[in-house]
Amino acid sequence: MDILRVGVIGYGYWGPNLTRNFFELPSSEVIAIADLSKENLERARAKYPDVVLTADYKDFFDKELDAVIISTPPKTHFPIAKECLLNDLHVFVEKPITLNSRDAEELIDLAEERGLTLMVGHTFEYNSSVQAMKDFIDDGELGDLYYIDAARLNLGLFQHDSNVLWDLAPHDLSILMYLLGQKPISVSAHGMPCAFEGIYDLAKLSLLFPNNLMAYIHVSWIDPAKVRRVTVVGSKKMAVFNDLGIDGKIKIYDKGVEAPAYTNGFNEFQYNYRSGDITIPKISYDEPLRTECQHFIDSVVNQAEPKSSGRSGLAVIKILEAAERSMANDSTHEVLEW
Amino acid sequence: MDILRVGVIGYGYWGPNLTRNFFELPSSEVIAIADLSKENLERARAKYPDVVLTADYKDFFDKELDAVIISTPPKTHFPIAKECLLNDLHVFVEKPITLNSRDAEELIDLAEERGLTLMVGHTFEYNSSVQAMKDFIDDGELGDLYYIDAARLNLGLFQHDSNVLWDLAPHDLSILMYLLGQKPISVSAHGMPCAFEGIYDLAKLSLLFPNNLMAYIHVSWIDPAKVRRVTVVGSKKMAVFNDLGIDGKIKIYDKGVEAPAYTNGFNEFQYNYRSGDITIPKISYDEPLRTECQHFIDSVVNQAEPKSSGRSGLAVIKILEAAERSMANDSTHEVLEW
Amino acid sequence: MDILRVGVIGYGYWGPNLTRNFFELPSSEVIAIADLSKENLERARAKYPDVVLTADYKDFFDKELDAVIISTPPKTHFPIAKECLLNDLHVFVEKPITLNSRDAEELIDLAEERGLTLMVGHTFEYNSSVQAMKDFIDDGELGDLYYIDAARLNLGLFQHDSNVLWDLAPHDLSILMYLLGQKPISVSAHGMPCAFEGIYDLAKLSLLFPNNLMAYIHVSWIDPAKVRRVTVVGSKKMAVFNDLGIDGKIKIYDKGVEAPAYTNGFNEFQYNYRSGDITIPKISYDEPLRTECQHFIDSVVNQAEPKSSGRSGLAVIKILEAAERSMANDSTHEVLEW
Amino acid sequence: MDILRVGVIGYGYWGPNLTRNFFELPSSEVIAIADLSKENLERARAKYPDVVLTADYKDFFDKELDAVIISTPPKTHFPIAKECLLNDLHVFVEKPITLNSRDAEELIDLAEERGLTLMVGHTFEYNSSVQAMKDFIDDGELGDLYYIDAARLNLGLFQHDSNVLWDLAPHDLSILMYLLGQKPISVSAHGMPCAFEGIYDLAKLSLLFPNNLMAYIHVSWIDPAKVRRVTVVGSKKMAVFNDLGIDGKIKIYDKGVEAPAYTNGFNEFQYNYRSGDITIPKISYDEPLRTECQHFIDSVVNQAEPKSSGRSGLAVIKILEAAERSMANDSTHEVLEW
Repeated sequence: MDILRVGVIGYGYWGPNLTRNFFELPSSEVIAIADLSKENLERARAKYPDVVLTADYKDFFDKELDAVIISTPPKTHFPIAKECLLNDLHVFVEKPITLNSRDAEELIDLAEERGLTLMVGHTFEYNSSVQAMKDFIDDGELGDLYYIDAARLNLGLFQHDSNVLWDLAPHDLSILMYLLGQKPISVSAHGMPCAFEGIYDLAKLSLLFPNNLMAYIHVSWIDPAKVRRVTVVGSKKMAVFNDLGIDGKIKIYDKGVEAPAYTNGFNEFQYNYRSGDITIPKISYDEPLRTECQHFIDSVVNQAEPKSSGRSGLAVIKILEAAERSMANDSTHEVLEW
Repeated sequence: MDILRVGVIGYGYWGPNLTRNFFELPSSEVIAIADLSKENLERARAKYPDVVLTADYKDFFDKELDAVIISTPPKTHFPIAKECLLNDLHVFVEKPITLNSRDAEELIDLAEERGLTLMVGHTFEYNSSVQAMKDFIDDGELGDLYYIDAARLNLGLFQHDSNVLWDLAPHDLSILMYLLGQKPISVSAHGMPCAFEGIYDLAKLSLLFPNNLMAYIHVSWIDPAKVRRVTVVGSKKMAVFNDLGIDGKIKIYDKGVEAPAYTNGFNEFQYNYRSGDITIPKISYDEPLRTECQHFIDSVVNQAEPKSSGRSGLAVIKILEAAERSMANDSTHEVLEW
Repeated sequence: MDILRVGVIGYGYWGPNLTRNFFELPSSEVIAIADLSKENLERARAKYPDVVLTADYKDFFDKELDAVIISTPPKTHFPIAKECLLNDLHVFVEKPITLNSRDAEELIDLAEERGLTLMVGHTFEYNSSVQAMKDFIDDGELGDLYYIDAARLNLGLFQHDSNVLWDLAPHDLSILMYLLGQKPISVSAHGMPCAFEGIYDLAKLSLLFPNNLMAYIHVSWIDPAKVRRVTVVGSKKMAVFNDLGIDGKIKIYDKGVEAPAYTNGFNEFQYNYRSGDITIPKISYDEPLRTECQHFIDSVVNQAEPKSSGRSGLAVIKILEAAERSMANDSTHEVLEW
Repeated sequence: MDILRVGVIGYGYWGPNLTRNFFELPSSEVIAIADLSKENLERARAKYPDVVLTADYKDFFDKELDAVIISTPPKTHFPIAKECLLNDLHVFVEKPITLNSRDAEELIDLAEERGLTLMVGHTFEYNSSVQAMKDFIDDGELGDLYYIDAARLNLGLFQHDSNVLWDLAPHDLSILMYLLGQKPISVSAHGMPCAFEGIYDLAKLSLLFPNNLMAYIHVSWIDPAKVRRVTVVGSKKMAVFNDLGIDGKIKIYDKGVEAPAYTNGFNEFQYNYRSGDITIPKISYDEPLRTECQHFIDSVVNQAEPKSSGRSGLAVIKILEAAERSMANDSTHEVLEW
């Protein structure tokens, strides 16, 4: 194919951003948009008067599309994605890929059988700051990693059919597995419904990765400050990715502590602290979503496994399921099987 | 007594601050200072040429002192405090009061029997910003509290005979119990030794208070950024105490979320977010340590129970002990008995 | 007319933003876009496949347009705007309206004669934070104003046919006159070419307004930090509009100083400082550009004088001309005649 | 002499800090303190019970002192310093050294004749961050300097016998001359009395240094935010000294702009922006005042010219005098003769 012909399913909160990118990228074309809400379709019409608009995505199946972009409420991801795969369309689906691992596995198998691309929207894997952080880690600049601490906090957006774990934690889980190139061994989680009964709006996860590396995730829909931060602490240096940073998004701290070679005779260790320069590296900014959309196109065209493949979406789901079990069970340590 | 005659035991990191305050307050006088290190005594001599200096605090017992101020390594708190009480001296001891609850109880009993004041250095109970936060909570300005999240992070100072839990968490535990006027029901904790084997330099605590109020504490000796923050989230407003704030230390956020009265018929709740003004109240600054030292003097003179009494020190110790059990035991929920 | 039919002239740096807004607003329609650069027209085509694209804006004159939106290099503003007015088109032109006041007056006269709307793109007059600041001033909340201090700094964007005065100062001049509802009495200016000979990339202006109110403007293309700040100091309160503020864009400081009623007898006045709460008022955010575009449409439809009329554009030009004379003449005080 | 015997004259706002340092430094001893206020003497007694206290500094002259430290209201600097020099005492005097250059010259001559040290309290010349900035400049890391922009703003402290120019600008003037190792060629200044008639509480200075280097100073007693900032812009890099910086006080920006080698044929230059890493170098912190006090002691002992000699104090006064003439005269450019 020369140009990927895509249909967008779901034009609510996030769909417009995906649509804009696929519309503007030269190697794709948005042929049709589906949404249940008339109002959303009106908004789409104002921007894209030539695109086919419909309330029913099944109308896509006779449009000679190559791929669909699914950005609907999470519980509809599975049935829609499945139907699209069965209609031989490549699928890009927003995170979380499905609401349970069984469904995710079914989608993966289906895509594989039919030779279709299945990609999940883990945007941060296409973020140049996250990429820079991964490079610092892989180059050994931080030394051996001790732990990673991630926080993603703000007020809202509450969703009645989801909770903060399924809404926000996929971002951090996909970041962690991408940064480390590994999957966690176990997870323990604690959640709390604050504003409304039964809706977890605060959650804290502890994940054990190989080599005793711990990772912590704090997500909240009910915090006064907006926070988007990942701290990586290593034996040589420490680094922070603050997506809201003003001077720059990554800070590298030349900081550490070392055991003393000797004691001072009074039974007092003299620890050696190293507190050197702080560097804010220049990272060229590309819109991560654009990079992601282009990657989907390339994956389809080259029949290559995307970075954020269905399998990577499944890994996130398996951790979320285990975290939910842990949350329901007094924060038990749930071992993950891969 | 007209003027409290005090002796200071321990002139290392924190002792000089206590000494300066008792020296300058008009209702107390520093008569003597004891420290094992010659170097520390030299530093004391440069500032206070008239004060008696000694390597052995037992020399205090014939100096007609009223009280001692103990700021020595934690493991020595108990034997020194006990000996001073037995010599009929009022005791101010730095946190943690002791290394176990049995010892703390013994000190409390001893002080009670002998009619002596026993106070522990929970400085933040004398901090005007913490006091302002307590007033906001007590006045109902924040509504019903959902949770409190506290973080106390930085690089160092490692201590070979302590860990980050015993070193930093007492601050936050005393703040929490002071703010809420209640003791926690249970605690669960997770700790990690990063830089050195066997020394926990990162710890996370979850505490359940009455009325399902949760409190979280994150303390670390091994974090790139210095953080001193307590976030209080209520049903009406949210507040943050940032001890490093530039414009002011307390921010009140008129933010919240409410359930909708109706749904829009498409099975979509429309949550009502309230995101109003942010206020940074003017809080007059007094050096908390000075307030604390004056409170000790007043408690002795008036034979009144100090705010941060031995019992409040004991409460902190009991939580720390339970947290250690939890840390050693896969983050079990440890019920606290009061 | 039902829907304003507009043509956009200039699709370089800023034109795409104007185009997007007029395209999306329901009461206007973008019929055609003109630009000399093929590359820019390609970018326009990717977004707006149905819009007529041309290298020559004269092609607009047979398109039954109602209005043109001019966002071309400043030196072309006058000839293009004039020609469009002569072709009976309403004109929205970016700031600075022209490169000299004579030209601006000619445009104003021409528009008046022909009953056409002439509006200049002083975006900040449509910014909700600037509006809020004006309300605080007008309501007397700040008391009598002492001075206003504005800074607009960053690195770049250098333009070879302009300088920092003509590029950035129009924003602050239009903000000042809008906030105060008055024109300055005199101006004194200093400029400096740093990076390239003959191109002023740093300028400082001092403006005297009625009632001895002073206003200072600092603009720079060659500063390490990005700054967008307007400080307003009054006798009762002080306020800062920081367009890059994280918590909010406006801060109101309840701060001031008052003379003492008496002296202490040692010839020392005891000034009374008032340093109360800081408030960050919630200001609902609307894209200023959208508000501005809608205002242009409304002004045309209602045949009403726009807020940022040609006359307001002319006022800015007259100040810039006087500032240039001052800069060329050792910062003389140039009196402005209105 | 083994140990410098000093007397402190003036124990109000700043005197206690000087006293503390001379008291604690091992090579000096505070023998006596003079102050007109009983209250101030009480405060001194509480800290230094052994030091001689007096209302009249003339009592010092029979105390076998080596030096005096003068920290009294500016208008008393000259008579007190003169009398002390006449009594063969080395003199450390706070800035501004005197209220006019004639008096400063008389002090300088007097000290020279009698072989006495005369030093003025330009603290920032002893600040390790300012020193680091000077090193960056001298090492050529910033390239050729374009300009320096300094701001020193806050609310208060108003003084009835001074103004903001004489109170705050000496800091920045001494920093500038120290950083550049040069004196300015001319100065132009603008001042404004806001809160009280006749008291300038806001001032802006423009200084021309050799090589067309411009320096700007903005000082204010009536600004909502506390600002302590010096920006240095060079052809290779830019640097900011922010004395209130949280991560660190100096930031080096690898930023610049270069002219293009060619144009793109459409009469549009393509400037090359360089926007690289930002570095916050680790600068070891020493209390500048302690370094300054030690430097005074060393200068006396070694009979060496101090960095902030009387001559450097005189240079500041001459600029202040010229700035006042300029302020009184519509911001004329006042040429400085050295």
